[in-house]
Amino acid sequence: MLGIKDEEFIRGKVPMTKEEVRVLSISKLRPEKNAIIYDIGAGTGSVSIEMALLDSSIVVYAIERNEEAISLMKANKEKFGCDNMHIVHACAPDGLDSLPSPTHVFIGGSQGRLEEILDCLYKKNASCKVVMNAITMESIAQTHHILSTLPVCEPDLVQVQVSRVKEVGRYHMMKANNPVYIVSFRFRESV
Amino acid sequence: MLGIKDEEFIRGKVPMTKEEVRVLSISKLRPEKNAIIYDIGAGTGSVSIEMALLDSSIVVYAIERNEEAISLMKANKEKFGCDNMHIVHACAPDGLDSLPSPTHVFIGGSQGRLEEILDCLYKKNASCKVVMNAITMESIAQTHHILSTLPVCEPDLVQVQVSRVKEVGRYHMMKANNPVYIVSFRFRESV
Amino acid sequence: MLGIKDEEFIRGKVPMTKEEVRVLSISKLRPEKNAIIYDIGAGTGSVSIEMALLDSSIVVYAIERNEEAISLMKANKEKFGCDNMHIVHACAPDGLDSLPSPTHVFIGGSQGRLEEILDCLYKKNASCKVVMNAITMESIAQTHHILSTLPVCEPDLVQVQVSRVKEVGRYHMMKANNPVYIVSFRFRESV
Amino acid sequence: MLGIKDEEFIRGKVPMTKEEVRVLSISKLRPEKNAIIYDIGAGTGSVSIEMALLDSSIVVYAIERNEEAISLMKANKEKFGCDNMHIVHACAPDGLDSLPSPTHVFIGGSQGRLEEILDCLYKKNASCKVVMNAITMESIAQTHHILSTLPVCEPDLVQVQVSRVKEVGRYHMMKANNPVYIVSFRFRESV
Repeated sequence: MLGIKDEEFIRGKVPMTKEEVRVLSISKLRPEKNAIIYDIGAGTGSVSIEMALLDSSIVVYAIERNEEAISLMKANKEKFGCDNMHIVHACAPDGLDSLPSPTHVFIGGSQGRLEEILDCLYKKNASCKVVMNAITMESIAQTHHILSTLPVCEPDLVQVQVSRVKEVGRYHMMKANNPVYIVSFRFRESV
Repeated sequence: MLGIKDEEFIRGKVPMTKEEVRVLSISKLRPEKNAIIYDIGAGTGSVSIEMALLDSSIVVYAIERNEEAISLMKANKEKFGCDNMHIVHACAPDGLDSLPSPTHVFIGGSQGRLEEILDCLYKKNASCKVVMNAITMESIAQTHHILSTLPVCEPDLVQVQVSRVKEVGRYHMMKANNPVYIVSFRFRESV
Repeated sequence: MLGIKDEEFIRGKVPMTKEEVRVLSISKLRPEKNAIIYDIGAGTGSVSIEMALLDSSIVVYAIERNEEAISLMKANKEKFGCDNMHIVHACAPDGLDSLPSPTHVFIGGSQGRLEEILDCLYKKNASCKVVMNAITMESIAQTHHILSTLPVCEPDLVQVQVSRVKEVGRYHMMKANNPVYIVSFRFRESV
Repeated sequence: MLGIKDEEFIRGKVPMTKEEVRVLSISKLRPEKNAIIYDIGAGTGSVSIEMALLDSSIVVYAIERNEEAISLMKANKEKFGCDNMHIVHACAPDGLDSLPSPTHVFIGGSQGRLEEILDCLYKKNASCKVVMNAITMESIAQTHHILSTLPVCEPDLVQVQVSRVKEVGRYHMMKANNPVYIVSFRFRESV
């Protein structure tokens, strides 16, 4: 069941996808039993762990290039006991070649290599499901470009803005999380 | 797996909880196997159906007073084949007496009877989990009152604002859904 | 003084910039006395009128191609008695040639001709102030492109999301307006 | 003309109303020439200064109880040369007795004394215009209560959520400001 609280993850200074965006991103990816999932730019591993815990038949590959994130991810993997989650220390698409073809891909960060990544994914499985988070104007603009030029179907693009009430002294303040665009699509084989 | 698209439900003019708010509300409720769930103000039944489909061991009671909504709900129940969902035509807390005690309760609408409903729920199970949606200033104000006066623990209050990109001619426009407050808590037995 | 209510304008089915976005757009444009302003894609003329009323020394050219909008604009111009507002029936940049050079430009809509319009404006006054509203993914992506490639300074880009409380029966509901990006910059003469 | 940038104000750790909320709050207050304005909970004085600069016939009383805020306000008053702005070191409604009756009141913060403040204002001028900002659940709930019980007319209640694009390395990120409710009304003499 989706819905792990942010506080349950071990966190450093590495940015982490927040509860609501994590839940919505995974629900839009909708991994089935036996899914093979890539989590590209996995950060602290929160999305990978939540997906790995959905079903023991699912296999998650968490790809991340940052050293500090990798060690947090290892700690989280151990804490949650996710044997079906594999950590790959690489900057995608580097490191994807040797992995089995994915059925579902979540892209939390792409380090400016989004086009290369999508090319690689398309070659590995021309019908895989992709969900991406975009938080910069650059990636929002690129996302729009991708949806209008790549062979995709079932496109879905939402912006999600969550404000959380927090106790501040004897008051409860609305604190805004940054808005996130969640982009979902399935590749379709072009003719 | 959470994430049924809004279009998959049979809809009339009855307002329906939208995909993202439905997914987040259920993920915050986190029903386990064998959960007994009330969906109060169930409307078209979209939340009930998505919960009933999570696991066949779950039992959902969908309580709704509106005739038109009831017949849409029946159609949706049949479409999705949810034998573990029971439709109760009543204005809660009326109709709750004869039902088994709930472990989890979702309140989508309360027809101005929220306090009565919460009283009734607390008597039936003083440790049940509750998630509510609030879209009016009245219910937002009342929610704040409830969280500060009732015996609750694990309170969580977020406002969610989703904008969805829709095709309009040859352009893609951002269309806002109305903001929804999602309130979650667990009752705790007072001493 | 800024802050005319939406209800004060004569409106048809032509989309109108809403109060809060109108006020913020004009406050970011900051027209001074004796300003010469273009309002491109002026629609019902609400932005033009609010600017014309700021000071009688300001001259506003409201450029609009849609016939229905033009007649609404004429009615609004008359209602508010704006002699310093001139209505130009054209699809910009058509129609701009014969107008005096602008000091300030508001672009509410550009009919897919944004690059042509900006080229034209830059030629007329290479230091004019520009404020644009973007509501489609196409214009958001284009805006990002413009800010990173054109010779601009003092860039400012905000997304504004307003929800207004409306009476619905005996309740007060939060109703969301669509999110709008407000982009502001000044041209700077390139070397 | 409204629209002073946040960076132009001298700021310490005292929270400041942000540009967009400041502009919208003042535009909803709509002070005319010769207005007598109270700015209650004036903080760094940004709202007071922007109102004082609108017209030299306007008189602004900036009421604030926090010492640090008072000294920042003095620095800002000097920087912007606002002779028509008077700083009152008090926790409103304390300190209001000796001031001339207001025509317009902005309430940025009320230190839990909102009802006392409104009572006092109503006695001083039973037709004055009031605009308030609410950022806590407590004040949102209270606001709703006020609008439904006090003798008010022309009520207007909006929630404003602004996200600003900021440069982060070579990217431009959307950074959310916290949502603010802006409440506006005019007292009407009850019979």
